[in-house]
Amino acid sequence: MEELRLIAAIRGMNTPRRRDPGLVAGIGDDCAIVRMRAGEDLLLTADLVIEDVHFRRRTHTAADVGWKALARGLSDIAAMGGEARYALVSLALPEWAGGRYVRGLYEGLNELGGRHGVAVIGGDVSRSAKLTLDVVVAGAAPRGQALRRKGAKAGDVIYVSGALGHAAVSGYRERPEPRLGLGRKLRGRASACMDLSDGLAMDLHRLCVESKVTAELDGVLPAAPGATLEQALSGGEDYELLCTVPAGVKAPAGFTRVGVMKAGRPGEVRFAGMKLGAGGWDPFR
Amino acid sequence: MEELRLIAAIRGMNTPRRRDPGLVAGIGDDCAIVRMRAGEDLLLTADLVIEDVHFRRRTHTAADVGWKALARGLSDIAAMGGEARYALVSLALPEWAGGRYVRGLYEGLNELGGRHGVAVIGGDVSRSAKLTLDVVVAGAAPRGQALRRKGAKAGDVIYVSGALGHAAVSGYRERPEPRLGLGRKLRGRASACMDLSDGLAMDLHRLCVESKVTAELDGVLPAAPGATLEQALSGGEDYELLCTVPAGVKAPAGFTRVGVMKAGRPGEVRFAGMKLGAGGWDPFR
Repeated sequence: MEELRLIAAIRGMNTPRRRDPGLVAGIGDDCAIVRMRAGEDLLLTADLVIEDVHFRRRTHTAADVGWKALARGLSDIAAMGGEARYALVSLALPEWAGGRYVRGLYEGLNELGGRHGVAVIGGDVSRSAKLTLDVVVAGAAPRGQALRRKGAKAGDVIYVSGALGHAAVSGYRERPEPRLGLGRKLRGRASACMDLSDGLAMDLHRLCVESKVTAELDGVLPAAPGATLEQALSGGEDYELLCTVPAGVKAPAGFTRVGVMKAGRPGEVRFAGMKLGAGGWDPFR
Repeated sequence: MEELRLIAAIRGMNTPRRRDPGLVAGIGDDCAIVRMRAGEDLLLTADLVIEDVHFRRRTHTAADVGWKALARGLSDIAAMGGEARYALVSLALPEWAGGRYVRGLYEGLNELGGRHGVAVIGGDVSRSAKLTLDVVVAGAAPRGQALRRKGAKAGDVIYVSGALGHAAVSGYRERPEPRLGLGRKLRGRASACMDLSDGLAMDLHRLCVESKVTAELDGVLPAAPGATLEQALSGGEDYELLCTVPAGVKAPAGFTRVGVMKAGRPGEVRFAGMKLGAGGWDPFR
């Protein structure tokens, strides 16, 4: 398919169904034009999904890939307590990925996007040996209220949503559900938050680095049925939320306590009295 | 290099040098947080740059690649008459691209970004067989004043900035200069605008499709010294601006008349009395 026809086809697959006063221009111009509401901060996040790094053709349909590519960004918006609005999709296609495959990608992507009010408003297309997607999600949070990784204090209680290691147990074949509703419930309650994309050990390490605290995990974790301890601690792609809540503040329903923050070496994570390595999924290892 | 170290290094290469009240959070959280000014529209654009599609290692240094990857998005912002502010850089690295190469990429990227006040505030990193960059640029234009591809009317005069085919003459080795200053001068004057990334024939065709008009090119074009007619009409990557200005309105300095819009078949481009095919650079051919 040549570029003009491909872009026209993608534009057809992404025509917004409802009138959105915030969207001045979507696909079809040099830039998309968005009008933010007063009193909002803009949230921006980018996530790559690459064949044989993040998925395999054997185990993931085109729609699974599209879903996953958007889910990663939506989960980042959830982690900030934000509302997701728009996506830009950059797509590098191998020879084998024809019109039907591209349609499948956008079907999966828009199935998830439709649930959260997210429309594709731009992107780019090109050629590549391996299928590569980069999805940028633009969202919003009330001014100054976005949740950050920094902000956790000694004494704050650590919580996670859902069950740890469920993606690993499924062999990473599940379609992840970004926790946008849970994230928004944390606004004004959580002192810090991030999403669990690379496993509790690595992500909690990152949160502790930004907040300059040490985490002491409880002995018991809300592991997914069938998950090994390693999967619960270091399984990637759960896309659950990890947050800290000041002692005395009630966490919203849907969160389970996993530990407490202490003063100590910034970034250190301790489990059952032992220091954990920042193990987790890492494409560079 | 493992992911945590790589991200820390990239963060170090992209620490903003001056305090920016619009940037609430850059690299290091789940999302970047940006505060737009009142009365502004947000502009968003994404551009892929892929090894052996958009550049070759033999002819482009790491800094050339970084420059080019940002230049494509800045040129899109220029085409809307906007001001560029921030970039998100998603980077998929082959084994051969180590820390020194990555540093070179960001040096080139930030050399160009520094000239236009653009800071890298986020992105993603992963592995890939071929070096792949996706750069998203966020910019702004006064509310309702961004230039569009639609809007050209029959009778409007067609202009381009600079010389056509200069990138083709250089063998695509030049560092493109996005025309942000020229784009802003078109606000309130041009009826339509876009940037020339794929050659005059293809891009003018696109503008005519969006504006539902036919273009009649003059017999003489401002071709770059040494450019063939084919290079002037279909050479890609000039990153000059193509615009239309109502008859009687003066185009800013730096623009040369190349033709006039007519009522007719939407999308048609005529040159020397003949219909031009929408030839131009296309990664899918």
